Amino acid sequence: MEKELDFTKTQTPNGTKDYLPLEAKKKRYLENEINDIFTRWGYEEVVTPTFEFFSALSVGTGVGLQHKMYKFFDRNGHILALRPEMTAPIARLVANRLDDELKPLRLSYQANVFRYEPPQAGRQREFYQAGIELIGAKDPLADAEIIAVAVEILKAVGLKKFSIDIGQIDYFVGLMEEMNLDPQTKVKLRKALSQKDFVALKELVEENLSNGHKEAIFTLPELRGGREILDKAEKLVNNKKSKVALDNLRSIYQNLESLGVADCVNLDLNIIRGFDYYTGMVFEGYNQDLGFTICGGGRYDNLLEQFGTESPATGFAVGIDRLLLSLENQGVELAIEEEPLFLIYDKAKKGEAIELAKKLRVDNQEVVLEIIDRNINESINYALNNNLDQIIYLGEEKNVADREYQIENLLGIEIIKIIE
Amino acid sequence: MEKELDFTKTQTPNGTKDYLPLEAKKKRYLENEINDIFTRWGYEEVVTPTFEFFSALSVGTGVGLQHKMYKFFDRNGHILALRPEMTAPIARLVANRLDDELKPLRLSYQANVFRYEPPQAGRQREFYQAGIELIGAKDPLADAEIIAVAVEILKAVGLKKFSIDIGQIDYFVGLMEEMNLDPQTKVKLRKALSQKDFVALKELVEENLSNGHKEAIFTLPELRGGREILDKAEKLVNNKKSKVALDNLRSIYQNLESLGVADCVNLDLNIIRGFDYYTGMVFEGYNQDLGFTICGGGRYDNLLEQFGTESPATGFAVGIDRLLLSLENQGVELAIEEEPLFLIYDKAKKGEAIELAKKLRVDNQEVVLEIIDRNINESINYALNNNLDQIIYLGEEKNVADREYQIENLLGIEIIKIIE
Repeated sequence: MEKELDFTKTQTPNGTKDYLPLEAKKKRYLENEINDIFTRWGYEEVVTPTFEFFSALSVGTGVGLQHKMYKFFDRNGHILALRPEMTAPIARLVANRLDDELKPLRLSYQANVFRYEPPQAGRQREFYQAGIELIGAKDPLADAEIIAVAVEILKAVGLKKFSIDIGQIDYFVGLMEEMNLDPQTKVKLRKALSQKDFVALKELVEENLSNGHKEAIFTLPELRGGREILDKAEKLVNNKKSKVALDNLRSIYQNLESLGVADCVNLDLNIIRGFDYYTGMVFEGYNQDLGFTICGGGRYDNLLEQFGTESPATGFAVGIDRLLLSLENQGVELAIEEEPLFLIYDKAKKGEAIELAKKLRVDNQEVVLEIIDRNINESINYALNNNLDQIIYLGEEKNVADREYQIENLLGIEIIKIIE
Repeated sequence: MEKELDFTKTQTPNGTKDYLPLEAKKKRYLENEINDIFTRWGYEEVVTPTFEFFSALSVGTGVGLQHKMYKFFDRNGHILALRPEMTAPIARLVANRLDDELKPLRLSYQANVFRYEPPQAGRQREFYQAGIELIGAKDPLADAEIIAVAVEILKAVGLKKFSIDIGQIDYFVGLMEEMNLDPQTKVKLRKALSQKDFVALKELVEENLSNGHKEAIFTLPELRGGREILDKAEKLVNNKKSKVALDNLRSIYQNLESLGVADCVNLDLNIIRGFDYYTGMVFEGYNQDLGFTICGGGRYDNLLEQFGTESPATGFAVGIDRLLLSLENQGVELAIEEEPLFLIYDKAKKGEAIELAKKLRVDNQEVVLEIIDRNINESINYALNNNLDQIIYLGEEKNVADREYQIENLLGIEIIKIIE
């Protein structure tokens, strides 16, 4: 075919991608492993629409994310958008469909989300997430459970190196209230901290803060480690909200010890996540080598009231593509079992070959049947090109193409197994 | 909360839906079963973007489907659309990413697709499909394999009643060529037949056809049954294309016999599917009681050349939501295993309970841990409300809330198992 095709017929839009078989297999493997873990912890999957009303998706997400949504109109003029994350859709679902259920609810999802932003490592404009939301529980054990599930996933898939940092938004919120800043400066300060923009931070602090408060802010990046940083942090603040936040973190940490995952986490009071809906514990799991977040989440006790109900809630999501990239980067082999048999046959034995394939499949064996009329060498080349390492030849010609072979008896049919 | 919320914050857009836990579980069960079958037949999953360039999605699909696409613009002014089906995206992927691979390729997908049309039974505007494409094989065995996989799926999930009808587009195309109709009448005739609009059909036939041809068209609906209808059909036509089509169907039927599924299918020369890209065998699996198609597919030997390569191809898709609805309608219970334990405990035993939950999960047991500080009766009410039938109480109070119980030893810990 020599006809020149328009790129819109040969390429996918910028920020989207095809997953070819090997990558798709890894993706499915991870999603299944993660779903199994969610299930063992009692989380039940829900599925929400890929697009929703823009106004529902905008709840709690902040202007930044609203600008990144793919928007379009339905034929009645309503603004629709592709979902940019899953917490708002699930809050909507809980408020409208599960409000009468006794709490807590443990819900999970596997979903693609969409953000119009520059494609990054492990993050296209369409990317895949798996996550859980634990709705209706205030206890620090709820937050610890969420973190423990995240740790279990990263361990179960074989990730060798990762960091999980846990913070508490209210420590910072209390500190800002104590400093009595104007709202605009608060927003700037939060942004500078969440983006780790230390230049902007220094400027803001020098202009607006007293010496004691300066120390509290500048010390924030140092407040990372085990339980001991909580005492250190306590000395830097003089307000109830921050102190309650520290008590909460102490209690979460204690539960993490009971859950056996405290040694995998750091407390880090400098963690202030991007989404506006977080109200308490926040955490991030990241890959230091690749410099990106693999998973993250936190408590969002005020989001559901914006959908008409009231309930505390906590949750997290893991990015499938970033997890895949991290595993590759660390040379982790996934336990993807793949033992397909490739069945070739003499023309006269076609019926017998079809029979054999059928029996083997009933036996749960993966069987690829030769379906093109070609000679044995061509069939074998095809097999090798397609990673079909186990070739079975059903026929009379024992000295098959000068290849080594052995005769095996499979389900009562004598076959020749070709050894490559 | 008494605040009145806008419907855009409480509802999902018309034609979309939430899958609550039970439905989502059934959906995932079906998708996993289907994926296992695809794998056993050697099909490998691929994943394509949810939206693509409108022009790529339009290839081969006909104007009808193009009008049903959800369209929007990227920020460079290109028209994008949510995919309305998966065959065109996979043809694009094969032409651009897998053109150098030796054929045949066996590819599968699990995907949501989108069509702006009146929501119907089992078909929202966003709905879920699973399917396979067998690229690069012309042999009638390839078509038979596709049909056999469809049959195996419907049987494996336990569907009790279904019909699979197999036709051959070229029988009809040859007949139309023989009748020497103008293009417009051809289009009308094909539409009337594919929509089974017998009123329009009668009118068209009376106006345009000779007596011999009238019989050929009016007899079409009767050409449904086993191998015998092929001879009957042969007598009604006098052109090579139709006769070659019948030979092809004969050969496909013979392969279906070898594959052991011929008794589940009917030949039906009246099957003319909606998509314009079909070129040979076409088939539909349907639920007579509910009056809709559950699965369907066929051969499309000319589609790939529109993406710049040349290859024969055949494939099919099954509608997950329609399959679910059919199973429900026939009272089929899916083998969804669900044996979660609900673990409640005395406050003093919290640490021990967390330990036990952890051990049980390592044992692959599904465990829901009580996470709210409430009395035993409230916990038990919650459990019963959430179908948590197996309740375990870790504590001192042996006469638990006047309920029957037995003491069990679970992983070395003595616990009380409540019998409801």
